[in-house]
Amino acid sequence: MLMVDLIKKKRNGETLTKEEIYWIIEGYTRGDIPDYQVSALMMAIYYKGLDKRETLDLTMAMKYSGDILDLSMISGIKVDKHSTGGVGDKTSLVLAPMVAATGVPVAKMSGRGLGHTGGTIDKLESFKGFRTDLSEEEFINAVNSIGIAIMGQTKDLAPADKKLYALRDVTGTVDNMSLIASSIMSKKLAAGCDGIVLDVTCGSGAFMKTVEDARALAQEMVSIGKLSEKRVTAVISDMDEPLGFAVGNTLEVIEAIDTLKGKGPADLLEVSKELGACMLILAGKSDNREEAKKMLDKTIEDGSALSKLAEFVKNQGSDEKYVYDTSLFDKASLKYELKAHRDGYVSEINCEEVGNASLLLGGGRRNKEDIIDHSVGIILNKKLTDRVSKGDVLATLYANDKHKLREGSERLKDAYVISSEPGKKNPLIIDVLGE
Amino acid sequence: MLMVDLIKKKRNGETLTKEEIYWIIEGYTRGDIPDYQVSALMMAIYYKGLDKRETLDLTMAMKYSGDILDLSMISGIKVDKHSTGGVGDKTSLVLAPMVAATGVPVAKMSGRGLGHTGGTIDKLESFKGFRTDLSEEEFINAVNSIGIAIMGQTKDLAPADKKLYALRDVTGTVDNMSLIASSIMSKKLAAGCDGIVLDVTCGSGAFMKTVEDARALAQEMVSIGKLSEKRVTAVISDMDEPLGFAVGNTLEVIEAIDTLKGKGPADLLEVSKELGACMLILAGKSDNREEAKKMLDKTIEDGSALSKLAEFVKNQGSDEKYVYDTSLFDKASLKYELKAHRDGYVSEINCEEVGNASLLLGGGRRNKEDIIDHSVGIILNKKLTDRVSKGDVLATLYANDKHKLREGSERLKDAYVISSEPGKKNPLIIDVLGE
Repeated sequence: MLMVDLIKKKRNGETLTKEEIYWIIEGYTRGDIPDYQVSALMMAIYYKGLDKRETLDLTMAMKYSGDILDLSMISGIKVDKHSTGGVGDKTSLVLAPMVAATGVPVAKMSGRGLGHTGGTIDKLESFKGFRTDLSEEEFINAVNSIGIAIMGQTKDLAPADKKLYALRDVTGTVDNMSLIASSIMSKKLAAGCDGIVLDVTCGSGAFMKTVEDARALAQEMVSIGKLSEKRVTAVISDMDEPLGFAVGNTLEVIEAIDTLKGKGPADLLEVSKELGACMLILAGKSDNREEAKKMLDKTIEDGSALSKLAEFVKNQGSDEKYVYDTSLFDKASLKYELKAHRDGYVSEINCEEVGNASLLLGGGRRNKEDIIDHSVGIILNKKLTDRVSKGDVLATLYANDKHKLREGSERLKDAYVISSEPGKKNPLIIDVLGE
Repeated sequence: MLMVDLIKKKRNGETLTKEEIYWIIEGYTRGDIPDYQVSALMMAIYYKGLDKRETLDLTMAMKYSGDILDLSMISGIKVDKHSTGGVGDKTSLVLAPMVAATGVPVAKMSGRGLGHTGGTIDKLESFKGFRTDLSEEEFINAVNSIGIAIMGQTKDLAPADKKLYALRDVTGTVDNMSLIASSIMSKKLAAGCDGIVLDVTCGSGAFMKTVEDARALAQEMVSIGKLSEKRVTAVISDMDEPLGFAVGNTLEVIEAIDTLKGKGPADLLEVSKELGACMLILAGKSDNREEAKKMLDKTIEDGSALSKLAEFVKNQGSDEKYVYDTSLFDKASLKYELKAHRDGYVSEINCEEVGNASLLLGGGRRNKEDIIDHSVGIILNKKLTDRVSKGDVLATLYANDKHKLREGSERLKDAYVISSEPGKKNPLIIDVLGE
């Protein structure tokens, strides 16, 4: 087989065989096929697409390019959850303890944030001493003993995807549904769960800007799930403004804890429960979403979700005291209030720009090597359709560096649009696919 | 400027500015822009194309990526000639002495052969001691003193094209008219001539298989010429069978010499005169092709072309005796006659396969590093539409190695098709553009 012939085949709109796709991915992972041939192929795929069979083969070839986590030592049906990315998206921190409190094992592998979107692993590290670098054995033991564990992605999980994604990122070949879907699904399938709940976000803070695109991606991933015999549910949720009020690692953790205490923002609770309910259904704990949501509500009412969080935090090396007294978290030293320059309604919050403002405050990473300041971030005092008067506080920014505080607030100022009309909010849950 | 943004721009079908194209080519030549980004861009160009302005800018950016030959020290209008490649194509060896004999300076830079097509430089090296590695000064002096010089391409001529072509070759991005045209024209423009005559071949032995493709390429190059204010004429000629009877370096040189002696094959003479006439017109020596052809005929009749060749060969380090007695050339030691297996007509000669057979005999290069055996090759005893009887000699192969002789003859056997009907030949000169 010659790589140039396979490039030409796809270039001409033909279909690659399973054997050819595995040969490409294996050769690329080993370093035998150079970047410049793979990037040309990716551009051909951008134009000519991959059909369902090719997409599945690509997903599976990337899944098998490295280690496969073996979770068979955990009893019960293990359900993973993945979000395509958002701003202020702390649903994992809320739903994982709730789901675990119902008795469904939560064995989750999470990522770090990059660019304007945050990562669960970074947020968890707001708990001093929290360990996410568990070995496979520690991970399995944790789930078996307390029903919940979250670890960072191991290096050897779907290495082909890691390499391919980095290449696509710099060659203009990210925006293709099949490539996006296979990238997400290869990692999730390698993480060894029995079922997967996908939160496909859409809107100004999401990778998919339109409902149509989000739906197409959701369908593609549900289809891969079906063909690979994994139970997959995809929830399409709105990300046209940040979820909840808090953006930034510690601020988001505190908001998640508040939610588990029954005093969190309604939108965050709604999305967390929707996703959590899907997890309960895939795990066979319930057979309808309303019932499942009630089970989750109960874990807040009886305090079992909060104590599960405390147990989880302690079990992974931090101290449960943070859960019961959030004033113990490190605080940022500087604060700035962004105020409304006119009367009116908040008609737009550019969600990606809120994420970028938080990044500029020091709460995110521009490059993989950047070090995060967990305490910094933003509290949104006003959200979409809120009525504001000139001088009202729109948002409060927290930082530890004057220069960064100025940069962040400049950026945030441009994210808010105040108009004479309130505009309207999208529904929070747009659709659920694959049930 | 970010390369990934320019890739996306072209990917989305937008037009790149002159500044952007120069930035890409300069960055790529310096090694600042990696292969994997350029190959993705090339694939986007494959699908989205380049308009006339972009093609011109790409050509000029590549032209200026290295040295520009300065031929201003040669008096008169210097006209170059370039062929898009063929088999048995020794027109340069015939027309260069003819044109020089009319008094028009011939300052030609030529390439080596690769794959099934031969190169003028390799053919000239059949003359023992012939030097093609002239310095710029030697080259200019030679043209000024005897009116003719041919040298190999210097390393620093259009290095961007060299790098880009090698990349396109292995990434399935060769087949785009704008990229092919800019590749050829950038080298020719850097070679410093005042006018360029292009032989755009088409047929089974050519890069362009159809007349439509050949015409599109010819138009693209004539258009680049116009926009860059160089006089360019493109001749579209047939290459559905080899030109003349000889394929292989020394064999072709002998056939060229025979042609200058007035006893060469009609097809070779016709194409050589057509191209040569275009050169005379561009040089201002004549204003119509019929008159120009007569001037060229005269150089054969009066022996001036042959003595110009002898002068040229001597001037570049070899001995003119070869020109007057071709039996002095080294001969191959082995010979094999390929015979017709049935009665009928030669209805097809796969020209590319004839080239490959010669390559297998040792007459060409698979890789740039291969060493050529000048004496080997093929004499085609029968050509298209010729009547043959079973057992007639179709072609005679010459080699110095039994194994190679067998390989070459096996390959050549499959190139000949004998049918009950004679079929028909294409006209040799299909069109002339840009006059």
